[in-house]
Amino acid sequence: MHHFEELSAEFAGRFAQDHFPQTPASLYNPNRYFLQLGGKRVRPVLCLMGNELFDDISKDAWNVAIAIELFHNFTLIHDDIMDHAPLRRGMQTVHEKFGTSTALLSGDVMLVAAYDYLNKVGPRHHATIIHLFNKTAREVCEGQQLDMDFEKQEVVGVNDYLDMISLKTSVLLASSLKMGAVLGGALERNQNLLYEFGRKLGLAFQVQDDYLDAFGDPEIFGKQVGGDIKSNKKTFLWIHALDAANPEQKAALLELAASNNPSKVENILSIYRACKADEWAMELKERFLNEAFAHLEDIAVLSKRKEPLKQLAQYLVQREK
Amino acid sequence: MHHFEELSAEFAGRFAQDHFPQTPASLYNPNRYFLQLGGKRVRPVLCLMGNELFDDISKDAWNVAIAIELFHNFTLIHDDIMDHAPLRRGMQTVHEKFGTSTALLSGDVMLVAAYDYLNKVGPRHHATIIHLFNKTAREVCEGQQLDMDFEKQEVVGVNDYLDMISLKTSVLLASSLKMGAVLGGALERNQNLLYEFGRKLGLAFQVQDDYLDAFGDPEIFGKQVGGDIKSNKKTFLWIHALDAANPEQKAALLELAASNNPSKVENILSIYRACKADEWAMELKERFLNEAFAHLEDIAVLSKRKEPLKQLAQYLVQREK
Repeated sequence: MHHFEELSAEFAGRFAQDHFPQTPASLYNPNRYFLQLGGKRVRPVLCLMGNELFDDISKDAWNVAIAIELFHNFTLIHDDIMDHAPLRRGMQTVHEKFGTSTALLSGDVMLVAAYDYLNKVGPRHHATIIHLFNKTAREVCEGQQLDMDFEKQEVVGVNDYLDMISLKTSVLLASSLKMGAVLGGALERNQNLLYEFGRKLGLAFQVQDDYLDAFGDPEIFGKQVGGDIKSNKKTFLWIHALDAANPEQKAALLELAASNNPSKVENILSIYRACKADEWAMELKERFLNEAFAHLEDIAVLSKRKEPLKQLAQYLVQREK
Repeated sequence: MHHFEELSAEFAGRFAQDHFPQTPASLYNPNRYFLQLGGKRVRPVLCLMGNELFDDISKDAWNVAIAIELFHNFTLIHDDIMDHAPLRRGMQTVHEKFGTSTALLSGDVMLVAAYDYLNKVGPRHHATIIHLFNKTAREVCEGQQLDMDFEKQEVVGVNDYLDMISLKTSVLLASSLKMGAVLGGALERNQNLLYEFGRKLGLAFQVQDDYLDAFGDPEIFGKQVGGDIKSNKKTFLWIHALDAANPEQKAALLELAASNNPSKVENILSIYRACKADEWAMELKERFLNEAFAHLEDIAVLSKRKEPLKQLAQYLVQREK
């Protein structure tokens, strides 16, 4: 059994190969630029861990892990266009550096490259893996669309928000694990338990993400806190606060959101605290994490095989940046 | 053997099924809107004809034909974003009607839907078809990028332009035919001859496209002629004219291109005529068509099986709109 750091390092080595032709450089260099910005490579490692939960890591699992990371980066390039984001990991986004049209097209060809790696999977699991991958890709697009739809709505219910986060973030974590499990020969029941573990872990991960953006330690967090508040992003905290606030607080939240008040972040944070949105978020995260662990517990393999996944899950939801 | 009209009508019937989930409608309705704008469905029919050249049309060929048409529409949606095109087939483009972000995402999910149909192909040809499809998809993106690169170059050589058109337009026609041939059990030599037939046909098709935009009969063409000239698009005619013009004509062409002169179209057309760019284009088209037919001739099947392809090729390069 291998731990996150080992698998992440080995994946990074294999992923460092060139995934694109040399020409036209105007199309492929933007992708090379983006991939070398790095990242934690959580999703491909989940695929490898899902695989190793049931068997030694196979060549197919490495190829699918690469496909997953390419897919994830494709979504980031296109999401950055849609969000007009100037920076990713502290560096210029692809559309900022190379223009929107090239970013669009480079993203498209990154997705095609992902399918190239999927197409290397042996015949036994070929169609199953592509089916699962397609379902996930569609759901991730649905999540992004719902996220954009929610931006235009004044009020978003917590269940609608959960559904959106599940699609936008969780299903890719879940299906990365499941693809690994499929390739490891897992029975369907175990595959599905692992999927649900990943889905709940993804929800806990997003709660932590929203929490850090508001309450993270700026020294450790590495970027300014309050970014979500400044851009009026609907987050777990915002949705809960609107729900838990008294009429006066609610009016203040909506007024602050519509304003460019220089104390906007500070004032919204103080209402979050008054509504105990911070405590609520930590409890919600624990609940999702416990549900995730219950699914993991149920999987019929020796419990020591589950250790790396447990550790990774703890790390992901306790990280401070 | 079936002719274009029969196959096109049968394809239209099968393609009319719903390819997307119901929700979120904000993501999938733009795709439904775009697909019902219609089109000649040439590429899927080429796949069916490539298939029928060697055997009865198979279920796999129908699925691949659908995948090809979805892919083609994905490229149109994204190209329209990049080209800032307001209209497609006389109707609003997806980004005009639903916004750029949704158009981007709807396009993405259309590409994923194409892979869903490819994934239905039986195990015998599964990996081969996806491999060929991926190669083609990558090349189409390369062609679009080169086209955008050329917009920023003052001079484009005719060979570079041919390479670009081959990627942007021809390879999809060629590979649609080849995928059909693969599924029909064609030997590799025949597959490749059919591919080359399609590639050369695509070049002839593009020459005709460029020609019609400049010299088409406005009554039949259905849209204003001179659109390429107005938007300073590099076309076969433009590249040839710059090459064949005397210094005075060349200076006039470049000056007109940079201007908003109300007689721009008229004046450039008269230089095209003076350089005999119209005659040159018709000869070039004939040359590509003859090369295409020579490849078709070489394919080792009874010549009567080739009739529908010959007729379709003639129609595509002689169409007046």
